[in-house]
Amino acid sequence: MTDTKTIKVGLLGLGTVGTGVYKLIGRRSEEMQQKTGAALEIKKILVHNMKKVRQGVDQNLLTDQWKEIIEDDEIQIVIEVMGGIEPAKTMITEALKAGKNVVSANKDLIAEYGKELYDAAKEGSADFLFEAAVAGGIPIIRPLKQCLEGNQIDEIMGIVNGTTNYILTKMFEDGMDFTEALAKATELGYAEADPTADVEGLDAGRKVAIMATSAFHSQVKFSDVYTEGITKITAADVNYAKEMGNVIKLIGIARNTSNGIEAGVYPMMIDKKHPLATVRDSFNAVFVHGDAVGDTMFYGRGAGELPTASAVVGDVMDVTRNIVWNCTGRIGWSAYKELPIKEFADVKNRFFIRMQVSNEPGVLAAIAKVFGDHKVSIERVIQEQAKAAKAELVIGTSAVKEYHLQDALEELKEMPIVSEISSIIREY
Amino acid sequence: MTDTKTIKVGLLGLGTVGTGVYKLIGRRSEEMQQKTGAALEIKKILVHNMKKVRQGVDQNLLTDQWKEIIEDDEIQIVIEVMGGIEPAKTMITEALKAGKNVVSANKDLIAEYGKELYDAAKEGSADFLFEAAVAGGIPIIRPLKQCLEGNQIDEIMGIVNGTTNYILTKMFEDGMDFTEALAKATELGYAEADPTADVEGLDAGRKVAIMATSAFHSQVKFSDVYTEGITKITAADVNYAKEMGNVIKLIGIARNTSNGIEAGVYPMMIDKKHPLATVRDSFNAVFVHGDAVGDTMFYGRGAGELPTASAVVGDVMDVTRNIVWNCTGRIGWSAYKELPIKEFADVKNRFFIRMQVSNEPGVLAAIAKVFGDHKVSIERVIQEQAKAAKAELVIGTSAVKEYHLQDALEELKEMPIVSEISSIIREY
Repeated sequence: MTDTKTIKVGLLGLGTVGTGVYKLIGRRSEEMQQKTGAALEIKKILVHNMKKVRQGVDQNLLTDQWKEIIEDDEIQIVIEVMGGIEPAKTMITEALKAGKNVVSANKDLIAEYGKELYDAAKEGSADFLFEAAVAGGIPIIRPLKQCLEGNQIDEIMGIVNGTTNYILTKMFEDGMDFTEALAKATELGYAEADPTADVEGLDAGRKVAIMATSAFHSQVKFSDVYTEGITKITAADVNYAKEMGNVIKLIGIARNTSNGIEAGVYPMMIDKKHPLATVRDSFNAVFVHGDAVGDTMFYGRGAGELPTASAVVGDVMDVTRNIVWNCTGRIGWSAYKELPIKEFADVKNRFFIRMQVSNEPGVLAAIAKVFGDHKVSIERVIQEQAKAAKAELVIGTSAVKEYHLQDALEELKEMPIVSEISSIIREY
Repeated sequence: MTDTKTIKVGLLGLGTVGTGVYKLIGRRSEEMQQKTGAALEIKKILVHNMKKVRQGVDQNLLTDQWKEIIEDDEIQIVIEVMGGIEPAKTMITEALKAGKNVVSANKDLIAEYGKELYDAAKEGSADFLFEAAVAGGIPIIRPLKQCLEGNQIDEIMGIVNGTTNYILTKMFEDGMDFTEALAKATELGYAEADPTADVEGLDAGRKVAIMATSAFHSQVKFSDVYTEGITKITAADVNYAKEMGNVIKLIGIARNTSNGIEAGVYPMMIDKKHPLATVRDSFNAVFVHGDAVGDTMFYGRGAGELPTASAVVGDVMDVTRNIVWNCTGRIGWSAYKELPIKEFADVKNRFFIRMQVSNEPGVLAAIAKVFGDHKVSIERVIQEQAKAAKAELVIGTSAVKEYHLQDALEELKEMPIVSEISSIIREY
């Protein structure tokens, strides 16, 4: 092909995702040009350890000096797949200010410093894209920022952490307990050595912040997202969920309500007929509700070398076309509103509460009175027919403010007839 | 806001979708500018009948002269929501050649003349977008052409007709037969007075052609798509499907194989655990498999006033931004390959065959021999325990070429022991 334009790329990081990106750009290089109007060439790759042997990677491209990439005038696209706040933040900021386009998969950074990075992109008239930062290979950021842009989006609800979804699937389908399922996830490489960010909902919380910001046009930071993990979910909860026709999923949820944005991550019981209920194993899915489109859902692989690389390379090809057409920086920070974030205590939820109580007359009445005193309406009661001195009581509430429920539970914990509050799980 | 740029829009058609677009642009006008950098103003609307009273529409905008829109130098975006081949084709072609950007929801036209329209768009350096033409409000064209562009997509499989999905849902869940379910769909406005295009799979076939062209980068026309409808599905088929843990869905499917593109629409039995199986009522969903991303799915409302308008307005906002940034025409015809279309007779499928046979010894052996002679392997046999002279025989085949199966069936039909071939349904 004549008149070939080649665009040079710098890659920051060569871990799992970086390797995937390197492979995929290589695999697609011939077609890239026909799709975008320019060929791509990875010119430099930033790594920690220059001596490590990396199968299939051209060793000549490696550098351990990041300035070699940011200060290289030939490089027009920087792909950041290192993760973490620093040094990624400094590198990306400098690259953007210098007019380099940046594609990033860094959810930690974007969830906290999205605005600052977009400001740097504006300064450099550069593209800043991050489809890979949320739900891996699933197109969700571009749909939110472009395809569904004609909508007022009022709810986003998703399974955006594959590790915990795998664990919950094993607990549901194979009767494993949490520890066993986590061990299995670690064995398969789904869970990291330190699984805290996954199992405590922090990873999902960052993704919720990014999606909410994109969808509601108002900044939601990770620190605005209430997070609660799945470590307390037990086999008993799983059994009750099944009995009630539900599944338990770690749900990231954000709502744009008339009195503020709600954003949280917590395990929820959802009806097994809800589209999210059928999302199994390490798959992710995001459910979006808009005033015009109604319900939509986006489903796929939320992590992994090639699925994440798919999202990165999609962004890179978009940037390439924008460079060819001289219109980078077209889609920038779109959070032009300043909506309040609702205190989590004021968010309303329905609750499933499992507790151990004395098996004697009047106990249910006493407990119901405490809930009633705190404005918590009870929708459903399941009481085990036990002959022992203790019985298990399961209560389903209607939608109540978090603080009312917490107040009721505080009082219940003090009562001699209540020996344990075993589970508190929100219901959709 | 100072420095306001206003972009003028012409609307061709004011039926269901046109009305939705008119409403939605009105509803979003204030935010449009913050999102895209320009305000939108509908300047003219082409209608058939100038005298009809249209609630909430400014009568002064109406015209019945299409040239008033195409020849208006101020109009930069033309939205075509009339449907049908002509006169839409002439209008869109002239608009594009004149450098006007076109957003269309016209699947009939794009499935047959996509290439010609993109050629006209190229001539006018104009955008030609049609997210609404496939699966209504669900983002699928932009994901295929952009987000998933780094993939080699080898399979697209979807429920892309809401009417037939509603009918099949009613047959499955409420025990209705086809005629009854169709009547219900008509009553609810899901089916048109002449339901042929829906129930015979023609509407879905057009969408398959458009998706396959976008995904495989090679032109697939509607005439390349084999189509078969749902009119022959009976309550007996539904019962067998349930017994086997399946559902029956009208599936549009396209595969990019090493010896050609396969494209078809037909009812299929799919495992009830497949993500498409849970798509109920008039919802649509498209399943896409790419070499990097793996399995993905896009779910939502495939039709209706506002869901379709959501897709149109998303495209319009994209075009608006491109006008502001002077980069229209960036994403054009991308079918740069010329892959062969496989003859449908050579496509391999698994089959569910239900037939009425004589209830006597040796019948199964005789039938099995005919299948075997035509290279059709049998995977499963269900024979009703009947005391009558006739019995129902259900056969499940392994994946066999369509023509082998057709040949076997021709021979079976001639046999005195076979009184009827009652159903032939493909299995995923």
